[in-house]
Order: sequence, then structure tokens, then C-alpha cells
Amino acid sequence: MKTLNLDLGERSYLIHIGADLLDKIELLQPHIPGERVAIISNETVAPLYLERVQRLLAAYDPLAVVLPDGEQYKTLEYLNRIFDALLEARCDRSTTLVALGGGVIGDMTGFAAACYLRGVPFIQIPTTLLAQVDSSVGGKTGVNHPLGKNMIGAFYQPRCVIIDTDTLKTLPDKELSAGLAEVIKYGLIRDLALFEWLEQNLDRLLAREPEALGEAIYRSCENKADVVAADEREGGIRALLNLGHTFGHAIEAGMGYGAWLHGEAVAAGMAMAADLSRRMDWLTRSECDRIEDLLRRARLPIRPPEALPAERMLELMAVDKKVTAGRLRLVLLEGIGKALITAEAPEALLNETLEQCRAGA
Amino acid sequence: MKTLNLDLGERSYLIHIGADLLDKIELLQPHIPGERVAIISNETVAPLYLERVQRLLAAYDPLAVVLPDGEQYKTLEYLNRIFDALLEARCDRSTTLVALGGGVIGDMTGFAAACYLRGVPFIQIPTTLLAQVDSSVGGKTGVNHPLGKNMIGAFYQPRCVIIDTDTLKTLPDKELSAGLAEVIKYGLIRDLALFEWLEQNLDRLLAREPEALGEAIYRSCENKADVVAADEREGGIRALLNLGHTFGHAIEAGMGYGAWLHGEAVAAGMAMAADLSRRMDWLTRSECDRIEDLLRRARLPIRPPEALPAERMLELMAVDKKVTAGRLRLVLLEGIGKALITAEAPEALLNETLEQCRAGA
Repeated sequence: MKTLNLDLGERSYLIHIGADLLDKIELLQPHIPGERVAIISNETVAPLYLERVQRLLAAYDPLAVVLPDGEQYKTLEYLNRIFDALLEARCDRSTTLVALGGGVIGDMTGFAAACYLRGVPFIQIPTTLLAQVDSSVGGKTGVNHPLGKNMIGAFYQPRCVIIDTDTLKTLPDKELSAGLAEVIKYGLIRDLALFEWLEQNLDRLLAREPEALGEAIYRSCENKADVVAADEREGGIRALLNLGHTFGHAIEAGMGYGAWLHGEAVAAGMAMAADLSRRMDWLTRSECDRIEDLLRRARLPIRPPEALPAERMLELMAVDKKVTAGRLRLVLLEGIGKALITAEAPEALLNETLEQCRAGA
Repeated sequence: MKTLNLDLGERSYLIHIGADLLDKIELLQPHIPGERVAIISNETVAPLYLERVQRLLAAYDPLAVVLPDGEQYKTLEYLNRIFDALLEARCDRSTTLVALGGGVIGDMTGFAAACYLRGVPFIQIPTTLLAQVDSSVGGKTGVNHPLGKNMIGAFYQPRCVIIDTDTLKTLPDKELSAGLAEVIKYGLIRDLALFEWLEQNLDRLLAREPEALGEAIYRSCENKADVVAADEREGGIRALLNLGHTFGHAIEAGMGYGAWLHGEAVAAGMAMAADLSRRMDWLTRSECDRIEDLLRRARLPIRPPEALPAERMLELMAVDKKVTAGRLRLVLLEGIGKALITAEAPEALLNETLEQCRAGA
């Protein structure tokens, strides 16, 4: 087992990464202040791991809340189902919520914890690669709105994150690829060595070699923890973690939540950000090709869906949280391992990217 | 105009109290960081004051969101209507929300501000006595759930509070009384001098003498600011502000939100807390009578509704946020001006209070 510390002063917490962690109550115990826990999971993950986690937490009278699986259920309405269950079971302020699932369950459980009785503790047990390398770390929580991704939410940090790499054994291929998109993202924005390691080791990751997966998760969490520690509430550098996300969120909202996996949309979005960076002469064609090659090898899309016209993409991008005073701010690349945020991308080039990427689909 | 400072370090803010403040843009200007505001109001208050506030904020391209009036609309569903309007108008992170209305509008606007794009600034312009003396100050925000009052919410402080006492001229008598319940509360929990002042000046308040109202509001906000500065997130002393609220919330939820005004339910709840305190020999009968007399003179109920059986009251009280590890914690009185929180009230005496108060209705 490896452990990282996310340093946020009073709100600091540990991220444990390793095999067989779902049996180690000593990792959770110090972070459960009360006598009770409520485990939030979904219909896909619950049959696989809920019983085991209930057994692990048997001393805390665990309540289980099981939601349907999918991004389309990441709404205020389904958030309210969590509140219904907690209130019906009379869970009080000392109840600890435990997120057992992927990014949707983690984001919703964190937001429920932020709001229930104006705040209760919570723990992340992410079971997808995407949640393990990205969404379970850093305290961004929330739900979607028909008009935009993650528009309603809170910054609310977990008490600890337990990443059991064994849970990846049951992960569908499509979701493994979606998780790899976020691993590649860290390479692109700030870690050239990770990007090169991925070029060399991608086949081992696709073959689910435990050692390779552990390494990819650890290096991803390390990058995430560094960035979040420097800028918890996204006043500056943290925004770089959104490489590909302004494009990607537009794809997710435009296609209907759940049609594309978040990681797939981010992959296409990163390819588009690279394309725009190249049109601005910030990136060479060969760098652009390396990026597209790696995404393709990871079995990820590099083009937006044909069903989504360029104008609709632009419209959806305009509600992004990074818009300030009407100006769209995009994360672009100045090289592999070097991202920056800019409001200066010429509209004509952005339109070219939106049109050409579709044309090349 | 009088001004109080609520000292919360980085989150400190000013509370301005006086006549004609709705024309003083210089009070708001320093607290609006962006170029845009969204005013949230309701169908009762908007026809009276919305135009004036829109004129005041004309430089900030004000968006107006008008909700129906009443506690029954303080729900996640109507909160979502605020998000709909903000997203449709493409309000970004630099938009400042302005709450123009009573406690429901203030609580919902504050919670919307806490969650919209994970947090935008907000300003309180309370127009009811209850909101002016209590709910607009201190950063408790949230919505109700069918199973309990304010079960979903956040601690989120406004950038400033503008209390224009002229707005009380249009307040219905019933709502004036409801506000007086919270003023009496400060006297009961920590300010004997205020309680005595109220005994002497209640008729002036009911006659809406501006000077008397200004004094009552100032002294109430002073008490509230002191308590909140000492305990922002209700780890201790702040819980005393909930005198009468555990009983009161049960009345509101049990009768259906909106049937009783919050202040009316709190008045009956304070009378019940006094009754229970007397049964525990913490309060004398004559102190109890003084409390009931003042509440009665303020035209407030001192008994729970006959329609609500004692068992149902108990059941509803059991979901209160102050429950810890299954034990109901109540705010009771050791004297006029001296409250304390206890988990030691004997169940038999609590049942007597619930039964006897109803019988005496």
C-alpha cells in the first residue's frame, strides 16, 4: 500500500492506494467520528462490493442507499433520494457518508454530505479508474443541470480516500479507457515524464497489470494532490485540470448525460484543445499527433460526435464555469506537459477546430 | 443609520440598519465584485420593492427571479427554479445574488449562492421583521424537506446585510408579530434588559413607531452577531438561538409548511420550552407567566395546534438537527435571559408538556 497526504491545513486527508484495502477497517476507523455510517452506491457496484463494505463497517450500523447507475441520474432529484433515505433512517449530524462507486456516486455523495444538516463527514471509496485518479480527490462535489455539467455543487473535502486497486478487475473496458483519459490529462498538463511512461506502458495498463495500474493511479493522485493543495477553490492553477473539459462538458450535455462517458468526452475535448493549440502555433503537428496516437491507443474518441453541430457546441461551452464577464476561458497546451489558461483564443480558430474536428470524424 | 460589524475574520460583514437605505447604492457597491446581479424575490414583495431595487442596481444589468410566496415553496424544487433562471441568463461566477424578501427568500437565495457554480457572492436585503432580526444575519441557509425544516443547506455568509426599516410599513400584522417572536427570543436566552424593554415598549412596536422598531432590530442583530461571531458553525453556544425551534419546527412540518408562520411556531415552541423548564423546576411559575404574557401581548400563539397529537410532535422532533446519537437535545431556560442546552429533560416531563400545552389550548 502507498499513501499520499493531501495538504489542506485543517482539511488535510490521506489517500491510500493498494490491493485488498476493502478489508482494512483500520484505514477508515480514525475518520468516522460517530456511531453510524451510510453507504451510497449504485445498482452496478452494489452487487459487487456493497456486502463486503457493509461487513467492513458492521460496527457502525451501516445504512445502504443504492441509486441507479449513470451520469443521467446525477441530478438534484436523485440527490434528494439520498436525503429521503437519510432522514427516514433518522441519520443525525454524526453520521458519516461513504461513497462506494464511480465519479457520479462520489460527486453526489460529497454534495449530499456538504448539504445534509448543513454538513456531515464523508469518505470516498472509488471503484472506477476515473474516480480513483481524479474525481475522488480534491473535494469538487455536485450535480448536473440540463443546461450544464456540475453547475450546482460545493467544495467539500472527504475525510479520507480508499483506493482498492482490486476493484478494477470488474471494471468494463470502456470505463477503463475513460479513466485512462484523465491519466493522460495529467501527463499533458504538467508531467511530460508521465506522458512518456504512458506511451511506453499503455499496453500493460490495457492488460490490467496490477503493478502498472497502481503506478498510474499513484502518479495521477500525486499530480492531483499537488495542484489541489496549491489552489483548493480553483482561483488559479487548479483550472488547468480542466484541460478538455469545456469541450467535453458540452459534448456530455449536448448528447444527453450518460450517452458518452465523462472520460470519453474529455478525451475528445483534449484532442480538440490540442488541435486549437496547434492552430494557434503553440503546439507542433507532431506533438498533436503524439497526443492523438496515445488517446487512440487507449481506445478513446478524438472527435466530437457528428450529431452535435459546431454552433450547438459553442452555445453549450458558453455556460462553462470558467466563463468570466462573457469571455470563454480555455485550457490549451504550449507543449506536452505544459498547459495554460487563456481567454485569447481567436474565435475564428476555435470555429475551425469545431468544424474540422467534426469533419475528420 | 446604525451599522454593526459581524466579526468572522475573512468572512466578516456589515449590517446596516436605518430608513431609506434602498436608495443608498454606496452601501452595496463595495460588496458587488462583478458586473452583474440577480435579485431573488417573491410575488408579494416584488410588486412593492423590486422596481426600486432594480433601479438602485441598474448599473449591474439586474436579472429578477420571482418565486411564489410562502414556506411551502422553500424546497429543492423551487431552488432549482433559481438555478434555471441563472443558467438561462448565463450568469457566471462573478454574478452577485441579492435576496429581497423575508426569511424564505433569504435562506433560499443564500443556499443558491452557496451551490451555484460551487459558490457566488450574495447580499441580504430582508423586508420582514423576522428576516431583519434573525434569518438574514449569520449565514444559515437552506431548504426544507417533507420530513424536517432546514434539513438541507449550508453555512454561507452574505457580503452585507441592508435592513431598510421603511419596508416594515407594508408588513402584514401577522408577520410583524412573527418577527417579534424572534426579538423576544433574544431577551429570553441572553438579554434580560431587552426582555424588560420589550415589556415596556411592546405597544410602541405594535403601533410600528419607527424609533422603537429600529431599536428592537438593532438590539436583536447585536445579540445575533455576538453569538454567531463566537460560534459560526453551531458547535456550541449558537445552538441557544434555537430556543423554541425544536418544538416549532415540528409544528411547521406537522401542519404542512406555510400553515403556521415560522415566528408563530417558534412562539408556541418557546412557551412549551418555558413550560418544560418550569416542570423541571428551572423556572418559576411567575417567570413562566411573564413569558406567556409578553408572547400573548405580541399576538402570538402559546400553544401547539390541536390538530397535532403529542406522539406526532415527538416523532417530528426526533429528526431535529440537534439530535446526537439518538438523544434529543433541547434548549431550555434557567431564568429569563439565561438559556442552556440539555439532553437531560426527563421524557415523562416532556410528554406532560406536550399533552398539557395542547389541553390548555
